[in-house]
Amino acid sequence: MRRREFFRNTAFTALGASLLSPFESIARRRSSNIVSSPAGGAKNIIFMVSDGMSTGTLNMASLLRFRKEGKQSNWLSLYEQNLASRALMDTASASSLITDSAAASSSWGGGVRVSNGSLNVNEDGTYNKPILQKFKAAGKAVGCVTTVPITHATPAGFCVNSNKRSDQPGIALQYFDLRFDVMMGGGLEFFSADKRRDKQDLLAKFKQGGFEVIRNRGELLAISSDLQKPILGVFYEDGLPYALDRETDVQLKETTPSLAEMTKTAIQQLKKNKSGFVLQVEGGKVDWAAHANDAGGLIYDQLAFDDAIGEAIAFAAEDKETLVIITTDHGNANPGLFYGEHANKNFDRIQQFKHTNNWILNGVDQAYTPDQLIERIEFAQHYVIAKEEASALLSHYKTLDGDGLYNPRKLPFKLLAQIQEKHLSVGWGAMDHSADFVELAMFGAGRENLKPFVKNIDLHNFMLQATAINV
Amino acid sequence: MRRREFFRNTAFTALGASLLSPFESIARRRSSNIVSSPAGGAKNIIFMVSDGMSTGTLNMASLLRFRKEGKQSNWLSLYEQNLASRALMDTASASSLITDSAAASSSWGGGVRVSNGSLNVNEDGTYNKPILQKFKAAGKAVGCVTTVPITHATPAGFCVNSNKRSDQPGIALQYFDLRFDVMMGGGLEFFSADKRRDKQDLLAKFKQGGFEVIRNRGELLAISSDLQKPILGVFYEDGLPYALDRETDVQLKETTPSLAEMTKTAIQQLKKNKSGFVLQVEGGKVDWAAHANDAGGLIYDQLAFDDAIGEAIAFAAEDKETLVIITTDHGNANPGLFYGEHANKNFDRIQQFKHTNNWILNGVDQAYTPDQLIERIEFAQHYVIAKEEASALLSHYKTLDGDGLYNPRKLPFKLLAQIQEKHLSVGWGAMDHSADFVELAMFGAGRENLKPFVKNIDLHNFMLQATAINV
Repeated sequence: MRRREFFRNTAFTALGASLLSPFESIARRRSSNIVSSPAGGAKNIIFMVSDGMSTGTLNMASLLRFRKEGKQSNWLSLYEQNLASRALMDTASASSLITDSAAASSSWGGGVRVSNGSLNVNEDGTYNKPILQKFKAAGKAVGCVTTVPITHATPAGFCVNSNKRSDQPGIALQYFDLRFDVMMGGGLEFFSADKRRDKQDLLAKFKQGGFEVIRNRGELLAISSDLQKPILGVFYEDGLPYALDRETDVQLKETTPSLAEMTKTAIQQLKKNKSGFVLQVEGGKVDWAAHANDAGGLIYDQLAFDDAIGEAIAFAAEDKETLVIITTDHGNANPGLFYGEHANKNFDRIQQFKHTNNWILNGVDQAYTPDQLIERIEFAQHYVIAKEEASALLSHYKTLDGDGLYNPRKLPFKLLAQIQEKHLSVGWGAMDHSADFVELAMFGAGRENLKPFVKNIDLHNFMLQATAINV
Repeated sequence: MRRREFFRNTAFTALGASLLSPFESIARRRSSNIVSSPAGGAKNIIFMVSDGMSTGTLNMASLLRFRKEGKQSNWLSLYEQNLASRALMDTASASSLITDSAAASSSWGGGVRVSNGSLNVNEDGTYNKPILQKFKAAGKAVGCVTTVPITHATPAGFCVNSNKRSDQPGIALQYFDLRFDVMMGGGLEFFSADKRRDKQDLLAKFKQGGFEVIRNRGELLAISSDLQKPILGVFYEDGLPYALDRETDVQLKETTPSLAEMTKTAIQQLKKNKSGFVLQVEGGKVDWAAHANDAGGLIYDQLAFDDAIGEAIAFAAEDKETLVIITTDHGNANPGLFYGEHANKNFDRIQQFKHTNNWILNGVDQAYTPDQLIERIEFAQHYVIAKEEASALLSHYKTLDGDGLYNPRKLPFKLLAQIQEKHLSVGWGAMDHSADFVELAMFGAGRENLKPFVKNIDLHNFMLQATAINV
């Protein structure tokens, strides 16, 4: 007992660190100064979020890349080369131990923990100023790129205040007023006159307002190096296609950009500003795939995110004034590659995948026979399920909504993942976010100030201090 | 494309790090020198393993400790106070992406990846010298303490060579010849004349051979500070009781030691050696609880491990010549606290737990009625399951083995965990080990040499170099 008391009262202070009360340090809802050394050093920040990435997601994507391509993932290469600072990050929100993406992005974006569903709006209705507004006011170019709607929670948390993350039509309108330099992703429905309740044609409005509006990969790649206008890129109705489905579909690959392509273009555009830039890059469909327990969707979108990391690091390594932050907002589904006699062989099957579970299940209709479904799955993912399994999957297609249409929410994602377990050795703990502490890495200017355990809110002031912005 | 090529070929080298071929760095099976600065600095090493600890296990245990006791876990306190170095560790074995505990401990113990099931024996039959034999030969005191049989894979991987981890009777005999200074845990069956096939009374043999043989907590706490003999402590038939069950049972608490108590005593004994010591401390039943998807077993045994960390850190903080390594050998079951309206309240229920699922299910017999089982679960864990759920659990008790006895392997651990999900918001990805990269922390002398991504095998030479032992 004497030794324990010594430990609690003096051991740490004797070693030179200040002793925080644990309540103070955990219960704290506002960003504190976690930087002790002189501020500044970074001119630019690239903030990269693989949304909903559990430990197993990073693990399986890195293992697959290594076994398929013979090279380490860009993320882990930084660690192998000892070029990154790392921390565990506590991701809770104001309302729950398990955050949603809105509260998570708000924690970084506004420096305050808000309730799930809120974008930088506190319980008492007060607003926290989003970080890209602060950086814009300080003279920096700012922007976001994502594989989900650009109006979705993770980009929105860096940009706006909104009571409801679901008000994506309203968030699209806020983006018009904000005039950020690069905003690109999916979400056409929130910009289209025929889909918006107010019937406004936002794409026309942005164009008339002086934005360069681009709609496909060709227009993205054709952006002139002289372009001085802010860019709005809206490349798909909802989220962009999964990386795996895009890779297999020649037309999708030609018309929709990869996250790495968006990232590269965004950097080229933003770096024109002499006072520097701040860019958020989101691999948003990693989270969607985790919600659906879709192994192919998850792993290949994580790899697409890893490709985007490659772009960011390549720029920052050359530039030397850029801080690259790489993390996730929360775990999701806690997938894993699990022990078993054929685990290696099963896992290597995923290398041959042509399509995601999302592609499989959305292409099936009531007319399908079990044999046809077996064939579809074999075509997409190179293994053969049993006839009873196919029948069980098809039984879900008998459920119709009021209009006699299939309800996409009822697609048997969970059952398909369960059937896959014996073929892939991949298991899932749930179909939702987890409270896990998550991986946080920094590369480049200012990374040395990262401590090994942080709260999500701490990153707000970290970014401001890294760039010596006082707001 | 040009940028990517730059990244691969020059960016890292330009920043001063050597560029490893990824094949070289991942496929490597033998420990390499990962220490670049001058070796030495540590006189003692305490190597702490929470066996089978996934990210969510560390997370939930820390959250529970904070919410119940108002203090941070000892493990995360080290991070909060910026007193630890951290790495991700790749845990694969020679035969699989997913290791078992024998191959994992052998990777640290022998510095070579061996096949699952093997203890420091290569595919070609050659042996790798276990690290505690090396340290003993170099004049250090050595030992292991664990909550599972002391002959189990994780301690054994630091001590012996054996083709089969399951040969625990043989491993017990090897321990006699090795004469290590402190070996303590469970596993009485492997030392008892009536349980061993060779009918040898190993306890008597150890006593006659000059060991101090202790059998319960009282004898452990009574060990004299003058004792110079090697200690064998065998405190329970198989693994020791789960920390939660022990805490609730007055008699168990009096007769069996906690892992922290074993750790403290082991340190006191080993530090008598003027040339220093090396001690392995294993929280072995974290792994057993994960295999059983037993939330109470898992979280409270992880906290018992955390208490042992407290003992090790307290010693090392005072001693200043001790390196404390804290890690796990692999993930297991990838549990998580998952999103839901009542997640906080559900999770807080675990604070009131009196007993593990293991206690619940092993105390049930065929005579149980659903109402009795409902009552037993409410007594043990403070929530009420449905009558149909109780009936479904009891249906598993109809399966008897050839002797008309219940087969303990058939106890419905999985079903109970599934029933618990709505009460606890804890989910599980599987009932076996995962390939996840795992958390590795170091505190004290020599920690500064840790790189952010290592293989399990790398720790072998790291320990030798930290203590400047050349073998």
